[in-house]
Amino acid sequence: MLHPDRLFPSDPAALAIARRLHAAIRDLPILSPHGHTEARWFAENQPFADPATLFIKPDHYIFRMLYSQGIPLERMGIGQGEIEDPRAVWRIFAEHYYLFRGTPTRLWLNYAFQELFGLRKILTAQTADLYYDTIQEKLATPEFLPRALYERFCIEVLATTDSPLDDLEFHRQLKHSGWRGKILPTFRPDPVVDPDFDGFVSNIERLGAVAKEDTASWSGYLAALRKTRERFRLLGCTATDHGHPTAATADLGREAAAALFDRVRSGSASAANRELFRAQMLTEMAAMSLEDGLVMQIHPGSLRNHNAALYQRFGQDIGADIPAPTDYVHNLRPLLHRFGNEPKLSIILFTLDESTYSRELAPLAGHYPCLKLGPPWWFHDSPEGMLRFRESTTETAGFYNTVGFNDDTRAFLSIPARHDVARRVDCAYLSKLVADHRLEEDEAHEIAFDLAYRFVASTYRLTKNG
Amino acid sequence: MLHPDRLFPSDPAALAIARRLHAAIRDLPILSPHGHTEARWFAENQPFADPATLFIKPDHYIFRMLYSQGIPLERMGIGQGEIEDPRAVWRIFAEHYYLFRGTPTRLWLNYAFQELFGLRKILTAQTADLYYDTIQEKLATPEFLPRALYERFCIEVLATTDSPLDDLEFHRQLKHSGWRGKILPTFRPDPVVDPDFDGFVSNIERLGAVAKEDTASWSGYLAALRKTRERFRLLGCTATDHGHPTAATADLGREAAAALFDRVRSGSASAANRELFRAQMLTEMAAMSLEDGLVMQIHPGSLRNHNAALYQRFGQDIGADIPAPTDYVHNLRPLLHRFGNEPKLSIILFTLDESTYSRELAPLAGHYPCLKLGPPWWFHDSPEGMLRFRESTTETAGFYNTVGFNDDTRAFLSIPARHDVARRVDCAYLSKLVADHRLEEDEAHEIAFDLAYRFVASTYRLTKNG
Amino acid sequence: MLHPDRLFPSDPAALAIARRLHAAIRDLPILSPHGHTEARWFAENQPFADPATLFIKPDHYIFRMLYSQGIPLERMGIGQGEIEDPRAVWRIFAEHYYLFRGTPTRLWLNYAFQELFGLRKILTAQTADLYYDTIQEKLATPEFLPRALYERFCIEVLATTDSPLDDLEFHRQLKHSGWRGKILPTFRPDPVVDPDFDGFVSNIERLGAVAKEDTASWSGYLAALRKTRERFRLLGCTATDHGHPTAATADLGREAAAALFDRVRSGSASAANRELFRAQMLTEMAAMSLEDGLVMQIHPGSLRNHNAALYQRFGQDIGADIPAPTDYVHNLRPLLHRFGNEPKLSIILFTLDESTYSRELAPLAGHYPCLKLGPPWWFHDSPEGMLRFRESTTETAGFYNTVGFNDDTRAFLSIPARHDVARRVDCAYLSKLVADHRLEEDEAHEIAFDLAYRFVASTYRLTKNG
Repeated sequence: MLHPDRLFPSDPAALAIARRLHAAIRDLPILSPHGHTEARWFAENQPFADPATLFIKPDHYIFRMLYSQGIPLERMGIGQGEIEDPRAVWRIFAEHYYLFRGTPTRLWLNYAFQELFGLRKILTAQTADLYYDTIQEKLATPEFLPRALYERFCIEVLATTDSPLDDLEFHRQLKHSGWRGKILPTFRPDPVVDPDFDGFVSNIERLGAVAKEDTASWSGYLAALRKTRERFRLLGCTATDHGHPTAATADLGREAAAALFDRVRSGSASAANRELFRAQMLTEMAAMSLEDGLVMQIHPGSLRNHNAALYQRFGQDIGADIPAPTDYVHNLRPLLHRFGNEPKLSIILFTLDESTYSRELAPLAGHYPCLKLGPPWWFHDSPEGMLRFRESTTETAGFYNTVGFNDDTRAFLSIPARHDVARRVDCAYLSKLVADHRLEEDEAHEIAFDLAYRFVASTYRLTKNG
Repeated sequence: MLHPDRLFPSDPAALAIARRLHAAIRDLPILSPHGHTEARWFAENQPFADPATLFIKPDHYIFRMLYSQGIPLERMGIGQGEIEDPRAVWRIFAEHYYLFRGTPTRLWLNYAFQELFGLRKILTAQTADLYYDTIQEKLATPEFLPRALYERFCIEVLATTDSPLDDLEFHRQLKHSGWRGKILPTFRPDPVVDPDFDGFVSNIERLGAVAKEDTASWSGYLAALRKTRERFRLLGCTATDHGHPTAATADLGREAAAALFDRVRSGSASAANRELFRAQMLTEMAAMSLEDGLVMQIHPGSLRNHNAALYQRFGQDIGADIPAPTDYVHNLRPLLHRFGNEPKLSIILFTLDESTYSRELAPLAGHYPCLKLGPPWWFHDSPEGMLRFRESTTETAGFYNTVGFNDDTRAFLSIPARHDVARRVDCAYLSKLVADHRLEEDEAHEIAFDLAYRFVASTYRLTKNG
Repeated sequence: MLHPDRLFPSDPAALAIARRLHAAIRDLPILSPHGHTEARWFAENQPFADPATLFIKPDHYIFRMLYSQGIPLERMGIGQGEIEDPRAVWRIFAEHYYLFRGTPTRLWLNYAFQELFGLRKILTAQTADLYYDTIQEKLATPEFLPRALYERFCIEVLATTDSPLDDLEFHRQLKHSGWRGKILPTFRPDPVVDPDFDGFVSNIERLGAVAKEDTASWSGYLAALRKTRERFRLLGCTATDHGHPTAATADLGREAAAALFDRVRSGSASAANRELFRAQMLTEMAAMSLEDGLVMQIHPGSLRNHNAALYQRFGQDIGADIPAPTDYVHNLRPLLHRFGNEPKLSIILFTLDESTYSRELAPLAGHYPCLKLGPPWWFHDSPEGMLRFRESTTETAGFYNTVGFNDDTRAFLSIPARHDVARRVDCAYLSKLVADHRLEEDEAHEIAFDLAYRFVASTYRLTKNG
């Protein structure tokens, strides 16, 4: 299922260049500085349960596509604690695997099926049981325990994404486990800085309780956040992450900010004030990043839980988050006015609105020292999406204001596949620049290495043994 | 003028694949589920008048381009009942045919000129009379009568677009004519649901008169719409079509909706209320579609009659409708909250705002069971436009949330040409996926068939003998 | 550093076509109808000072990229009257030249380095001094005086961009100098029509003083503008240019306009009124263009001086202008309602928002006789940007509603390089249309000539000896 030249240009001149570029970086270790795997897996190192629980349940790319074609979420095991009949779920998936033709999900899955499980016939209703049995059997072996897979994948660093309310117990265990894997937490404060987050008010109380600060006051709240960031940092965290509906930032005076905090904490703030609070908090987080050196990631522009009925039944992250038009040029200005020229601040911008690549993001990152562009995100983490990203940003921001790849996944087994796709597409893009005589091949080699490894290590402040 | 490999990739590997894919689907019958031809042509089966009346007068693609270069509409026969001097109009067109270099209009016309009329030298001032005489002569022959052309084009179904005030007399005649062609009406209620439509208030009265319902009341109005849909359905209609300025939807309670209806019927509603009424009516139409099974098509985002002076002199549809930015993610939410998870509802979304392909439309269609993506529309019904559509939507929505091609034309003779372009571009896109090793060739064959035939038949609920 | 096939397709069939197209237009003279060079250079014909002052100081493409990577502007000689240590500045630039990999800046600079200075090894820290010495030495020779370079570049017309407050003394000197170069002024009234322009109120007074009109009244102000346009026209000016934040236009009655003028002249107008005044002035300028025949260029959508701290220290044009989403379809309507159908009016539209190419600009230009599309501007004046422009506009607006290339540069030595890139990319695009059998090669030859020369001459109303 995996052709050695997949995703490379078919034009022979560019193909030869792409092959050479790729051969030199194919086997580099994986740095995964942003994603949604669970530290628990590696701390406990227990076998994954079954193919359906491993591949389908955590992967909204999969079940959203099946849902769009009329398969109820229940039939895919969503909304159940444990999947009751994982083989039945797997069969439904197999029967509908053709839906993924032309999608990156299929590239990722085929890679995992073939490279990890040795399966070489495409998944269909006919091969469903063969797949299920083969995978199930292997999952029970020591080679398929989480830590063994981490090592097999040549992962050097793997970052999780964590709530400030998380005690990071699994990260602590891992740190002291003697295992050489590096699983780092990432500070994602949405539950305590976004007034629209479920349980926001009580989350702030819990934040205070854990941090031993009085979060009923603005200064206590900020102190609790500062302390919590430090708690994360001591367990290896190098970055924060912010999943706001928009990229709005604000720069209120201390008194106005404190009054706003009181209002949102009372639970009666207007939508505009809740938005203003999120905006102010991005600027506060930037201020703290200047102090403690954590890199900021901003992931704006997803309208979460668009499907109200499903949200009521199944909760969040069920494939119903839809991108919305996103403004950066006006929205980021308050934060940038205050901190945009700080050489020590590092903010990585992501988008779900590709129209901003050439219009706003590349021009901003090509000017402000603190800004860099994150890789194509979510719906755009795909061959065509990656190509559009490079074609729309490189000419204005260059390569050196980008940060390499994020796999950003909940699907642990897809990590090598996703890096494989990213490395191939970057080599394909570079090979085209060389074939068009816009770049020398030795320069392309350097850049291919930078994109696959060096930029990730430097931007996210990771070091080999750090 | 027609190279056998036109629109295929020039790279030899992909070219060979494209040729094979295309050979297998080239001769499939044409399903034309959405367009603007006239039932009268087929009911009366009279010869087309002359080349100018046939090719130029109904085709805003043609006269808008000439107008943009300073040719007054009058010189193209627009605004006259019958064209006074069709040969003079044809000569002006011929003289300016070079303006269409690089446009799909030229692809369509060259196809018709060569394939139907055997013309092989490009149209210029020099060949204008040769063209005129050749075409004029053939139009007088039985082979060029509307029904003969329908059969020659291998059309299996051809849908028109019709006002609820239309008595569908020609459709009725066709149904009982014994002719095997299938000309189906489409229910396009804009004249009675859009308060900004010319004569809206009196249209509602006429709707009531025809349907024998009291449309002075909200319930009578809804009943009249329901009855009219049924009248259409009995003549083979399988779909509705909605040409609103935006994609706004609303879900008002019964009382609020009735009060709003009174306001718009009084003719004094504000712009916001007129927009709200259109929004509400999309949701009402979805409710009726759930009852009667008509597929809904939404064509939003055209700012109609942008050129006020021309509109006053020539009326609508004279090439001065300009696309505007279109929001789907917020605007569709009220309708989707109510009906988004209904497996029996089918809504096809179109756009004139390509920035929504990857940002909103593919994510929406890749989640909601009721949503599918219509093909590139109007200004985007072109080789580059089709390629951008596939490249921007496939990775998120797959092929299976799309619906095949619509020719959407008033220009009857362009129908085979438009399907030819669509089939070629789809094969070119698929050949690239195969050449890049993202898809197997046998899968590409299946998809090429689906796009050219099967998806149209199934989404629009057409069947061969239905 | 310059491969003869650079920017051409690597596919052999298209490559051969591109070479033939390019060979036929490569050596055409350069028409540069819009840019930011200085008439003084050619009037005084003094040697350029040094490599840093010549290449770096006027080129925001260069220093914005270095600034984005943490190099302070001071180290690049910005904000100093004369660069104190130009060799030091040059070395910093050389050391960071790798940042421009994949950008058009590198294409332009490599061209100038090799073609003008005979340098053939890429610029690095190692070659910095070799470059500096070679360039410095040549700049002192007569062959590198501004007029000699103008002739060597085969420039036929070069337009500058000038304030209505400029006395155009250098243009006057040039006109009477006997030198055969044609340096034309362009009327850019922003300082006296944009209430947010630095010194707006006093600028209006100076405008009145120079034009001998009482600009304290609306009618005197308009008369002063009319006279000033005439002053420009007599020195060869054929075009105006308007750099507004948005494309807003308005069409107020005479009294309302006069009252608005009083308000903005008082310095106390609201932001909305300042925007309305700019909008009204675009329509007034169109009215004057109808009288005096000056072509209008509208360059909207740049949010100027986004970085407030840098603006305070270094002023404008330091690389911190960021594009914003731009609306044309609603914003241009008032002006188009009044003048859109005037065949003698010519308005060239530019954009920094590529999402408007296919959605708004191509449909507008493909309908209104007065509208044409300017080439890709600023951040989009690049190989990928030019390709996106052609791919997104040609199918709707054709080639004949576009106007050829603008180099739009302050960097005199980059002019031939920029035209070289534009001609190559246009030939590459055309070669693809021919290879795809969408266009005949002889037609492509005609269009390549039109894009490189004829459209510029005709749209900007330039003639060889005019």
